[in-house]
Amino acid sequence: MTQSFEKLDRTSVPELDNILGIPFNVLDDGFIRVIDYMGSDAAIVQAARVSYGKGTKKIREDEGLIRYLIRHHHTSPLEMCEIKLHVRVPMDCWRQWIRHRTASVNEYSTRYSLAIDAVQKTKPNEWRLQATSNRQGSEGYLEVEKGRSFSAREDELLNLARIVYSERIDAGIAREQARKDLPLSTYTEAYWKTDLHNLLHFLALRMEQHAQLEIRTYATIIGCEIVSKWCPLVWKAFNDYQFSRMELSKQEIAIIAHLQSGDIEGAKNTAREYGFLPAKGESLKYNLEREEIEQKLKTLGIRPPWLPS
Amino acid sequence: MTQSFEKLDRTSVPELDNILGIPFNVLDDGFIRVIDYMGSDAAIVQAARVSYGKGTKKIREDEGLIRYLIRHHHTSPLEMCEIKLHVRVPMDCWRQWIRHRTASVNEYSTRYSLAIDAVQKTKPNEWRLQATSNRQGSEGYLEVEKGRSFSAREDELLNLARIVYSERIDAGIAREQARKDLPLSTYTEAYWKTDLHNLLHFLALRMEQHAQLEIRTYATIIGCEIVSKWCPLVWKAFNDYQFSRMELSKQEIAIIAHLQSGDIEGAKNTAREYGFLPAKGESLKYNLEREEIEQKLKTLGIRPPWLPS
Amino acid sequence: MTQSFEKLDRTSVPELDNILGIPFNVLDDGFIRVIDYMGSDAAIVQAARVSYGKGTKKIREDEGLIRYLIRHHHTSPLEMCEIKLHVRVPMDCWRQWIRHRTASVNEYSTRYSLAIDAVQKTKPNEWRLQATSNRQGSEGYLEVEKGRSFSAREDELLNLARIVYSERIDAGIAREQARKDLPLSTYTEAYWKTDLHNLLHFLALRMEQHAQLEIRTYATIIGCEIVSKWCPLVWKAFNDYQFSRMELSKQEIAIIAHLQSGDIEGAKNTAREYGFLPAKGESLKYNLEREEIEQKLKTLGIRPPWLPS
Amino acid sequence: MTQSFEKLDRTSVPELDNILGIPFNVLDDGFIRVIDYMGSDAAIVQAARVSYGKGTKKIREDEGLIRYLIRHHHTSPLEMCEIKLHVRVPMDCWRQWIRHRTASVNEYSTRYSLAIDAVQKTKPNEWRLQATSNRQGSEGYLEVEKGRSFSAREDELLNLARIVYSERIDAGIAREQARKDLPLSTYTEAYWKTDLHNLLHFLALRMEQHAQLEIRTYATIIGCEIVSKWCPLVWKAFNDYQFSRMELSKQEIAIIAHLQSGDIEGAKNTAREYGFLPAKGESLKYNLEREEIEQKLKTLGIRPPWLPS
Repeated sequence: MTQSFEKLDRTSVPELDNILGIPFNVLDDGFIRVIDYMGSDAAIVQAARVSYGKGTKKIREDEGLIRYLIRHHHTSPLEMCEIKLHVRVPMDCWRQWIRHRTASVNEYSTRYSLAIDAVQKTKPNEWRLQATSNRQGSEGYLEVEKGRSFSAREDELLNLARIVYSERIDAGIAREQARKDLPLSTYTEAYWKTDLHNLLHFLALRMEQHAQLEIRTYATIIGCEIVSKWCPLVWKAFNDYQFSRMELSKQEIAIIAHLQSGDIEGAKNTAREYGFLPAKGESLKYNLEREEIEQKLKTLGIRPPWLPS
Repeated sequence: MTQSFEKLDRTSVPELDNILGIPFNVLDDGFIRVIDYMGSDAAIVQAARVSYGKGTKKIREDEGLIRYLIRHHHTSPLEMCEIKLHVRVPMDCWRQWIRHRTASVNEYSTRYSLAIDAVQKTKPNEWRLQATSNRQGSEGYLEVEKGRSFSAREDELLNLARIVYSERIDAGIAREQARKDLPLSTYTEAYWKTDLHNLLHFLALRMEQHAQLEIRTYATIIGCEIVSKWCPLVWKAFNDYQFSRMELSKQEIAIIAHLQSGDIEGAKNTAREYGFLPAKGESLKYNLEREEIEQKLKTLGIRPPWLPS
Repeated sequence: MTQSFEKLDRTSVPELDNILGIPFNVLDDGFIRVIDYMGSDAAIVQAARVSYGKGTKKIREDEGLIRYLIRHHHTSPLEMCEIKLHVRVPMDCWRQWIRHRTASVNEYSTRYSLAIDAVQKTKPNEWRLQATSNRQGSEGYLEVEKGRSFSAREDELLNLARIVYSERIDAGIAREQARKDLPLSTYTEAYWKTDLHNLLHFLALRMEQHAQLEIRTYATIIGCEIVSKWCPLVWKAFNDYQFSRMELSKQEIAIIAHLQSGDIEGAKNTAREYGFLPAKGESLKYNLEREEIEQKLKTLGIRPPWLPS
Repeated sequence: MTQSFEKLDRTSVPELDNILGIPFNVLDDGFIRVIDYMGSDAAIVQAARVSYGKGTKKIREDEGLIRYLIRHHHTSPLEMCEIKLHVRVPMDCWRQWIRHRTASVNEYSTRYSLAIDAVQKTKPNEWRLQATSNRQGSEGYLEVEKGRSFSAREDELLNLARIVYSERIDAGIAREQARKDLPLSTYTEAYWKTDLHNLLHFLALRMEQHAQLEIRTYATIIGCEIVSKWCPLVWKAFNDYQFSRMELSKQEIAIIAHLQSGDIEGAKNTAREYGFLPAKGESLKYNLEREEIEQKLKTLGIRPPWLPS
């Protein structure tokens, strides 16, 4: 072998270096800080090209290659990038965050140290109403006047919780037990480190409109303020191909193909066959899958053939 | 609390119990056997309903719930099912298989025991030609007459390799070193255990038409002969929503919406903006992303507006 | 190949089948139930023997093989066994539990359903005091008389928290937000599934005397009541080789060897060299590593040579 | 909250920067190059201190903290460091390497490009003999004269294999199939990225004397040449507490304690009870566990009481 290798310098991304350590404020008392990172758009290209060998050097441009990788879910080169964040998050939100298992975590220990003396408080205009269309979401806000009384009540509860915690600590009760009744709105802090592939998966799920507002706020900042600076080509491709994509099922493809060829009955029959359109003559009933299809067809500018024109 | 729980029996799936231990033959000397499993369609529903709590019992039917989970990538309940296979696979194919990291593996050790005395041989009509459209695939076959000489040549090489291996063993050379020049076509065996979520991911990648024929053959048997019996509702939903789905990017959605509203120029402009259609007046050049879009449009019955009609 | 395989029946463990679904009560309102499992002591042996090939069949007895695997950290055959539990745990304890990442989880969703109306309450004689020797532990109990007032105060806080939660729900505030100030002592439920290797790792950390009492109680029941029935050979080997083992560092080995050969000064010099014994003539100061060594030496019946006899 | 944070610079380790990209040669044609890294000894301390909160800042010195973490298997802060290597390894060795699942990998694709034209060749004095004491190892070497003929025979096989591969490629056979009979000694290349915790686990297993010579050579270079420069405090602690440690089982502890108190019969009885010493009056038979204990006792300078003095 006569391969020769040059001395390398570390990959760095000046746009990200500029914000290292500086907190992005989130919610009323949370933050996200980038502590360190490894890799960049260029490092992804470099790793992908190991797979492809000499055969493809210079054939594709970097941006084209990155877009290809993301379009085709070739995610292993994305794992070559790592980022380490320092975050401050309400425990309720952290409970969702920590469900993403492919990450390294060092969390502030309330066995070892006093619980952080900060809770996420809700302003009078921030009380959200239960969604009716979606069992696990919210839509709209409580009127501010009512909100005021709920915020006051919240203060009362949070104050009592903190006093009770302090009384226990003062009496010498173990920190690991004194904390047991702290409210979920108490802030925690953690170092959280993950690779870019798993981070994009986190963002795809948590920036999404059905994600809970609190974690969505964190995710959006990580995406729009951090990943966008760190790996701008990946960020753009992620938005085009992953975050804003539409998935069409086998039956949705068949319905569209029928409609494009003018076969309205064929489209309806496919829908009936899959059980989301009632038999001829029966009236339409609520069906979640049909609603989802209708929404997709509308986005594509195609009229669902079973709806009144 | 006054919850009361009944004694449970283990979930079992008679259709799968019927084939436990029986080998499905694969390639010339490989096999797949189901050794054990945990869970079923019903176990997935049960796990999903823990998340939903009392609120939703009986609201959705089981099949609807499973289809919903798969359509929306709510994959955690699928992890509640496990399957353990005993497989015999050429090492070359195993090298691809083992890249799926979320699985448990016990492989036959050629340090500990003599290498398995079986290699995957290629019949005269099985030599595949390099694809021209795709750097990493094959298309079409070598003519049988030529294939015959390559098969003979293969025999010669495989025989020599086995003889050399035996000579080393007979001379007392350590098994861990004697094996070093065995051909990649040598069979290995392993117990391979994974959960249903990760298995479906494996199948989606390896049953796919671009997967190499050998691993595709194994994957197809696992899907069509095993998963189809084990979790038939999941298998159907997987085919409808995951395996046969089409993904539309942000720009593909925009192009289709333009075309449906009759705005041909808008569609072309979007394509130009994203760089896969040349500027007006320039002639079409090869562009992979454009080819992919054209293919999707055709499947949907939509004519790509830049192609001659 | 002329291998032939017989039809298999699933591995089952009658001792575990007997308790399937039946709750073990934990704390004041928690439980652990075994829902399903895969594998057994025999399945581990079977998987290990695939690695060893024909060469070793019948050479080792099953128990000897299992003990060998655990003694030598050959953990991959242990991954061939899975267990699925249904647990009810205070959120504070669940926060520790969920840090074990190699597991599958479906947790009760308080976005989707009303929060479970149960909290872990502390009896007057259960308030633990902060350990002085260990920043993150507890030792001893608060006197019952004082405990009574802390339990009353706890009731007050928990009642207020539940009332505030109900008020929010009644006013139509979204469940995902109404829950934000629930105390960490609120119970949650989950299906939790993991393999035996990762379960033993969990048990080694959480049955250990420094683990917090609450999670230690759960872990001890999982080990002593469940694993002991499921895989009794593994359970015994785990206790002998993993849970009750002692680790000696390079310098501890050197110190013991010096002492056994009668070289007291050599032992002391080694300790000085590693910095946990002060230079000759200086007085002993607190040093954690020295304390750990002294403890080990005492367990082995060896007198630490720097302590007054 | 009035926390304030300063702008950070990235952690860097000049000793590692100095060798970035420069290959360490391994075997006859392999190499290891460090491509990039994240973190350092200091980053581990920083992450650990997040867990401990304000309570412990400055209390422990950095080295003491790192030694404490490793001694007590508190491995999560070690996950905060990542390293990315470019390696060239024979496929036979890579088959072992890739079994470590917690790593990110981009391997050279022989579907996409021509197989690397290099194989690991064995010199006449490098043929190892099968170990008799250990079914899966080697000990000693074949005499050079005989080795010469095995090296010549190897050349013959490797040449034929390469010729056959070239004939297939020249005939237009697909690369994915042409490669099927390549010898396992063929070199492959990969980018391999893992965190420091998982890397130490890899090193503990692969630097160990029972690991196969080839992978042991790679592992030793990674440890002694790379980790030692990157995180010198971790490297030292790893050697003292993890790599060179001795584990004593419950029964080994009991035997030593008996011996130290002069109770020879008690020691023997414990050994009999655990089945590795035959009943009184019976003669000693080979028993692996007893051999292991004898070895440990000797290392500690303690005479096994059942051996003739």
